Amino acid sequence: MSEMNLQNHPAIILVCPQMGENIGAAARVMANFGLKDLRVINPRDGWPNEKARTMSAGAFDWGVNAQVFETLEAGLSDLSYVLATTARPRGMEKPVFNAEEGIGALKSRSDVKVGVMFGAEKAGLLNEDVALADGILTYPVDRSFSSLNLAQAVGVFAHAWAASTIEGEAREEFAGVGEVADRDQLVRMFEHFEDELDRAGFFFPEEKRTVMTQNLRNAFVRAEWTQQEVQTFRGAIKALALGRGKARIERKG
Amino acid sequence: MSEMNLQNHPAIILVCPQMGENIGAAARVMANFGLKDLRVINPRDGWPNEKARTMSAGAFDWGVNAQVFETLEAGLSDLSYVLATTARPRGMEKPVFNAEEGIGALKSRSDVKVGVMFGAEKAGLLNEDVALADGILTYPVDRSFSSLNLAQAVGVFAHAWAASTIEGEAREEFAGVGEVADRDQLVRMFEHFEDELDRAGFFFPEEKRTVMTQNLRNAFVRAEWTQQEVQTFRGAIKALALGRGKARIERKG
Repeated sequence: MSEMNLQNHPAIILVCPQMGENIGAAARVMANFGLKDLRVINPRDGWPNEKARTMSAGAFDWGVNAQVFETLEAGLSDLSYVLATTARPRGMEKPVFNAEEGIGALKSRSDVKVGVMFGAEKAGLLNEDVALADGILTYPVDRSFSSLNLAQAVGVFAHAWAASTIEGEAREEFAGVGEVADRDQLVRMFEHFEDELDRAGFFFPEEKRTVMTQNLRNAFVRAEWTQQEVQTFRGAIKALALGRGKARIERKG
Repeated sequence: MSEMNLQNHPAIILVCPQMGENIGAAARVMANFGLKDLRVINPRDGWPNEKARTMSAGAFDWGVNAQVFETLEAGLSDLSYVLATTARPRGMEKPVFNAEEGIGALKSRSDVKVGVMFGAEKAGLLNEDVALADGILTYPVDRSFSSLNLAQAVGVFAHAWAASTIEGEAREEFAGVGEVADRDQLVRMFEHFEDELDRAGFFFPEEKRTVMTQNLRNAFVRAEWTQQEVQTFRGAIKALALGRGKARIERKG
């Protein structure tokens, strides 16, 4: 993240939030997903707010910059493109986006400052707030239980933003630890396994040998084992068939 | 949602959660996005939990069914495909998915019961928990501030699940309230506007008339006005040019 250009990361605008806990939780999830520009419009309990600091889990120290404004107009003044989040249709003539589309709209304005507004806990954004927005961002909530926690609403947006920007970087660390075995290694493992099963009298009756072998091979192929896993399993076959250490048996011939 | 087949909606499995508040907040955001199967493994503060009920905002009454299990193995027993959420690479040989891909993997198992595990607040899932999963689900968190609140982690998944299933249904309600004006209506509006501007001496000097007209037309076309909005604006032009009621002026000729 440190190398990324933060200039066009969207501002998160909380409009008249009531609970400090939600402001702090919003700041925490912003930090989780690399967002830093938090704007708090006329918070009910004033600012700074101890509950916000506690729930932020250190997000303000990490780098989330919270600015407080008395009015929404002041909080939006330097932004050129703003989305309003709402679960309720407003009957307004604005484009309506899901999270992915909304982020596309924000990113396409790469040369201006952009932001997303979130309304207060009880009733969300007022219509007059939404009227200041260029577009509406909405989530596919269940109509019978549609009221999201404020910080959850911020979190869904922040994740979707990060998913569209830092996805690649974050996932590199999860690259597998070993190389997948090639077919030759698999086939030699199969032959080793089947050979020992044969000695153990597994393939009975004889006419079922082919289908039993195929079923086993299908099951193992699907596992996409690494070279190391193949080696480990071959060791397991050997141990089962012959025993190890003091348990080792001598095979004749 | 009510008509949807809930049989294959994923179970949300909270492994040894500490705070009732987070269990309740997780239940709330599950309900927001239509998920009902909550499994709580060995919760620190027992069950039922008053703080969970408070933070759920009614999600349990709405339909989220919380089952409590003593062990993870018991909580997973009827599931056939399970993902484990983690922000830390585990060096395990499992497929790693982002939210969208993970949901694809879950949905492709449409004939079996599936679930997603979330670890406890302090340290997430243990490696032995992750070992029981078919795949890893990870979010593109900022590496320098990667610890998500438990309920936020559930919320990001629940949103992504809903976005892939009930998107269409939820957004229909947001259809615009009016029909977009066609070009003919726009052109007649432009002519009306320009005619009044001309009378008012707006187009000066004369050689700038063409570019001034084009600039105005470009600005209005971009707004994608509805028929109703075009009518409203024409009323505004008329009022500005002629006045209304007692303020009305009589135009000669």
